[in-house]
Amino acid sequence: MDKNEKVNELARRRGFLWPAFELYGGAAGFYDYGPLGAPMKRRIEDIWRQYFVISEGFAEIEAPTIGVEGIYQASGHLSGFSDPLTSCKECKEIYRADHLIKHIVEVPDALSNEDIYKCIKDNEIGCPECGGELSEVYEFNLMFKTMIGPGNKMTGYLRPETAQGMFINFPRLLRYFRDSLPFAAVQIGKSFRNEISPRQGVIRLREFTQAEAEIFIDPRDKSHPRFSEVADIRMKFYSQAAQEKGEEEEMTFGEAVERGIVAHQSLAYYVARTYQFLLAVGVAPDRLRFRQHQSDEMAHYAADCWDAEVFLDRLGWIEIVGVADRTDYDLKAHTAVSKVNLSVFVHYDQPVKRQKLVVKPDFKALGPRFKAKARAVGEALKALSAQELEASREGGNIRVTVDGETIEIEPALVKYESVEEEIRGEEVVPHVIEPSFGIDRIIYTVLDHSYYEDSVDGEARAVLRLRSSVVPIEVAVLPLMDRKELTDPAKAILQELRGRGMRVDYDTSGSIGRRYRRNDEIGTPFEVTVDYETLEQGTVTIRDRDSMQQVKVPRWQIADKLTALLSGTLKFTDAGDLVAQSKKE
Amino acid sequence: MDKNEKVNELARRRGFLWPAFELYGGAAGFYDYGPLGAPMKRRIEDIWRQYFVISEGFAEIEAPTIGVEGIYQASGHLSGFSDPLTSCKECKEIYRADHLIKHIVEVPDALSNEDIYKCIKDNEIGCPECGGELSEVYEFNLMFKTMIGPGNKMTGYLRPETAQGMFINFPRLLRYFRDSLPFAAVQIGKSFRNEISPRQGVIRLREFTQAEAEIFIDPRDKSHPRFSEVADIRMKFYSQAAQEKGEEEEMTFGEAVERGIVAHQSLAYYVARTYQFLLAVGVAPDRLRFRQHQSDEMAHYAADCWDAEVFLDRLGWIEIVGVADRTDYDLKAHTAVSKVNLSVFVHYDQPVKRQKLVVKPDFKALGPRFKAKARAVGEALKALSAQELEASREGGNIRVTVDGETIEIEPALVKYESVEEEIRGEEVVPHVIEPSFGIDRIIYTVLDHSYYEDSVDGEARAVLRLRSSVVPIEVAVLPLMDRKELTDPAKAILQELRGRGMRVDYDTSGSIGRRYRRNDEIGTPFEVTVDYETLEQGTVTIRDRDSMQQVKVPRWQIADKLTALLSGTLKFTDAGDLVAQSKKE
Repeated sequence: MDKNEKVNELARRRGFLWPAFELYGGAAGFYDYGPLGAPMKRRIEDIWRQYFVISEGFAEIEAPTIGVEGIYQASGHLSGFSDPLTSCKECKEIYRADHLIKHIVEVPDALSNEDIYKCIKDNEIGCPECGGELSEVYEFNLMFKTMIGPGNKMTGYLRPETAQGMFINFPRLLRYFRDSLPFAAVQIGKSFRNEISPRQGVIRLREFTQAEAEIFIDPRDKSHPRFSEVADIRMKFYSQAAQEKGEEEEMTFGEAVERGIVAHQSLAYYVARTYQFLLAVGVAPDRLRFRQHQSDEMAHYAADCWDAEVFLDRLGWIEIVGVADRTDYDLKAHTAVSKVNLSVFVHYDQPVKRQKLVVKPDFKALGPRFKAKARAVGEALKALSAQELEASREGGNIRVTVDGETIEIEPALVKYESVEEEIRGEEVVPHVIEPSFGIDRIIYTVLDHSYYEDSVDGEARAVLRLRSSVVPIEVAVLPLMDRKELTDPAKAILQELRGRGMRVDYDTSGSIGRRYRRNDEIGTPFEVTVDYETLEQGTVTIRDRDSMQQVKVPRWQIADKLTALLSGTLKFTDAGDLVAQSKKE
Repeated sequence: MDKNEKVNELARRRGFLWPAFELYGGAAGFYDYGPLGAPMKRRIEDIWRQYFVISEGFAEIEAPTIGVEGIYQASGHLSGFSDPLTSCKECKEIYRADHLIKHIVEVPDALSNEDIYKCIKDNEIGCPECGGELSEVYEFNLMFKTMIGPGNKMTGYLRPETAQGMFINFPRLLRYFRDSLPFAAVQIGKSFRNEISPRQGVIRLREFTQAEAEIFIDPRDKSHPRFSEVADIRMKFYSQAAQEKGEEEEMTFGEAVERGIVAHQSLAYYVARTYQFLLAVGVAPDRLRFRQHQSDEMAHYAADCWDAEVFLDRLGWIEIVGVADRTDYDLKAHTAVSKVNLSVFVHYDQPVKRQKLVVKPDFKALGPRFKAKARAVGEALKALSAQELEASREGGNIRVTVDGETIEIEPALVKYESVEEEIRGEEVVPHVIEPSFGIDRIIYTVLDHSYYEDSVDGEARAVLRLRSSVVPIEVAVLPLMDRKELTDPAKAILQELRGRGMRVDYDTSGSIGRRYRRNDEIGTPFEVTVDYETLEQGTVTIRDRDSMQQVKVPRWQIADKLTALLSGTLKFTDAGDLVAQSKKE
């Protein structure tokens, strides 16, 4: 078994990740998080929340996963979120058409459906299953579709990303943040893509979890007030230029912005926060890089985009996070479809003074000319914008509309005046910085990067070296033997620790060595063993997963010691009296 | 405005709950949790997790929200989860048929579709919109349907409840819990019901959040090891008998089980835990009752069922939790469809010895009679179960099957013997206790029950008296004025508190009194005010939402004091020097 297989086997056997619906034959692209996977997922999401909600003061929201049609018309998913398919005319099997010509065309994505079909015919490509003739190439939209309410009146789609929930709530969010930039909203939740034939376990799912932030900033100033906090962090940047050389370049974030490698401070700041978050949950820094999108791979509206990529055995470099400056694309797209203005009035620090041309109607001249309408004409003249006035001056008459009637006024009837105007601000459409995290891929990466094997007494030991902050089980309480005089005090410790909010398991089955091994394999950082010394001397032992060392601790101190060990404020060897490593594990 | 309107208006205006998709015209039955609602929801879910996952040692899992057809065939949702509809033949509007005859028939649910239609015709009920003729009554399934993958080959349904995710993972869960009862799994997540025309805000949603536990217990012993922890809790039970009298009966859980009012300890234990949880998140005890299902309202397989009901202004008593003993119904239903045995081998504490009848074939007699088949016939006789043997003895010949051929054996050719057999255990299909929580309804209840108005200096003050453990904003940091010498230290406090994981808001806009009021309204328990004394004496004030009292605290102690205040370990009046209440708020 290679490492990929080992990690998958472990994840399935112990209850991290299960292929879904096994009782009913299963379905590709769907996984369950089991009793160990689900708490690990929750904890990783909570760390994300500490980084991208609490610390930044961003707003977490929770929008429905079903959405109405207008949203995806505006976002472009209705027309553009699809794959080219072809079906076998004989056996009816369905294929990704572009995948069938991968060995012939280098970038099949660039071809139109007609060209893909032509390539299939020219190269006499038949059905991979039965050799039958393939159909013309057609588009298959990757959104799951459903009907809302009875009577097939309203179409709904399962959201392909959480992002749209933030965009369509822009007016309410703006009000929540008291009408000023910057502000940001996030969501952690399910998204859906009806993939053609998903493989690769949780790397490509039909139902998956995203954590996305939409950070609305003032487009005129993309500096970041907290950039200095991250400017000195060194990281490997795999920029467009570095990719040409084929080698990442290490530098500080400060340098990356100064040299123009990352577009601006705001983008760099969130790339840095992403980097810190990934390390905090246990992604290995030596198997992590940030790769800049090539200009031809970036969306046409994007100003800059960086992907966090991790190296996984067998799969190679895989994207787990994207951080992009999407400019004003999304808000403008929603304004175009919804007809709702999605801009912000930005107040200047100091009002700006500007000379402005205004009209002074000459009522003495207008009166005889327009009679009863003179006043209305005068008001219409005054209401003309500076721009309209300017345009009207270029010779010829001025035109105004009064009661639906267009009236021409000779310039002689009008006087102009230049006045000073105070401008307090302007309407801007915010730009959006979007860090978008694939939570399932991150979880798989953390399992892969923490998997480790050593050997104890000549036997292989598999360990998940997970951080204490993400482990599903924080402590295992193990009575040395399954006897009432040991299980009673062990159960009392169990309840005490659970009452403190710790995730604690209790296990009496099998030898103590086997139970240690079982816990090593799922990453449990500490085991508490209750033995006859507990009864005689009032002590228990705590065992450390990584060093396999044991310390003896007074029974009454156990909850405090474990709290300190788990939070990292206490070093293991300072936790109690080290037990001599004479006994075999 | 009545209280219901006030709470809804507040929830919408301040960002707890927003009707979804407003930018695109909205859709009934869908809500967003806004920047205040989403964190409150997360925190209530986390408290639930402390009660029903961590403290009990239950396994949290996360299954997909899309499910395959077999699941809902077994669960009965495919055939039975529907509402009776009728459409107007003129204007095509669609109605719940049973709702149209509510004023005529007392319990329209009990009628068949034919009878409902007959009632509509007999009473000449027309379309409520246009008066047109109504169609025959038909069933509309309430599951959202979608197609998985291309080619319409595989139907998927959005789950109508999270429960099935636990049932179909029963074999894996059993293995995770090392093959022994009791054990339990839970899920917190989205469920979907395609309601005909949902109203009542978040009380009836098409997409909603459930928290459900499926607790698998040994049907032969429904006592609970931790029952003594809840036996002395007093609560109002609205039992079947009490409902006849129209008055709840207060008693302890111990008494309720002893008198047979609640079926058994296990059910009573989880009702008690539900009660504790609801009080912990802020449901008002005087507007909460537990109502037992009437025998005719309970599912036919259920042994007993209790609903937690809350009283809401305008809506009356509303169910927010159901706790049921579903017996072995669900597991047997899945066994029937999936053909997978979903039972547990339960080991007896002591092996049971039993006399067992076995057969001793008389080969001397069998040989001449059956020739070459004699040995096979003998083995077939030995393989007969005690039951089959017993049945065969009641006169007549014994029948065995050898190579597909039925062979009759006269009793004279066989000798019987009674031997002692040791039985180590037996296969049992576990019973299921299911506490099922409607999270959205609980959140609305907590808002409603905590809403409160008083008057300050002659002006009305609206307050959400939320518990600190569920508030969306724990602390507001307020510089007295928007001046750099005050905002700089205020921002430093903001970052320090956020670094400690507190949910902190920062607000400079408007008078300090107005900012207090704004925070009272969303339940913020404490405000930290930074004023010129902060600069001169190094102190800040903390204000208490409920008493509106203020204490002066040294700047450097602020994070520790707030931590203690929020966790409830420090009394407000002990937190610092009380500021004289001379100033107006």
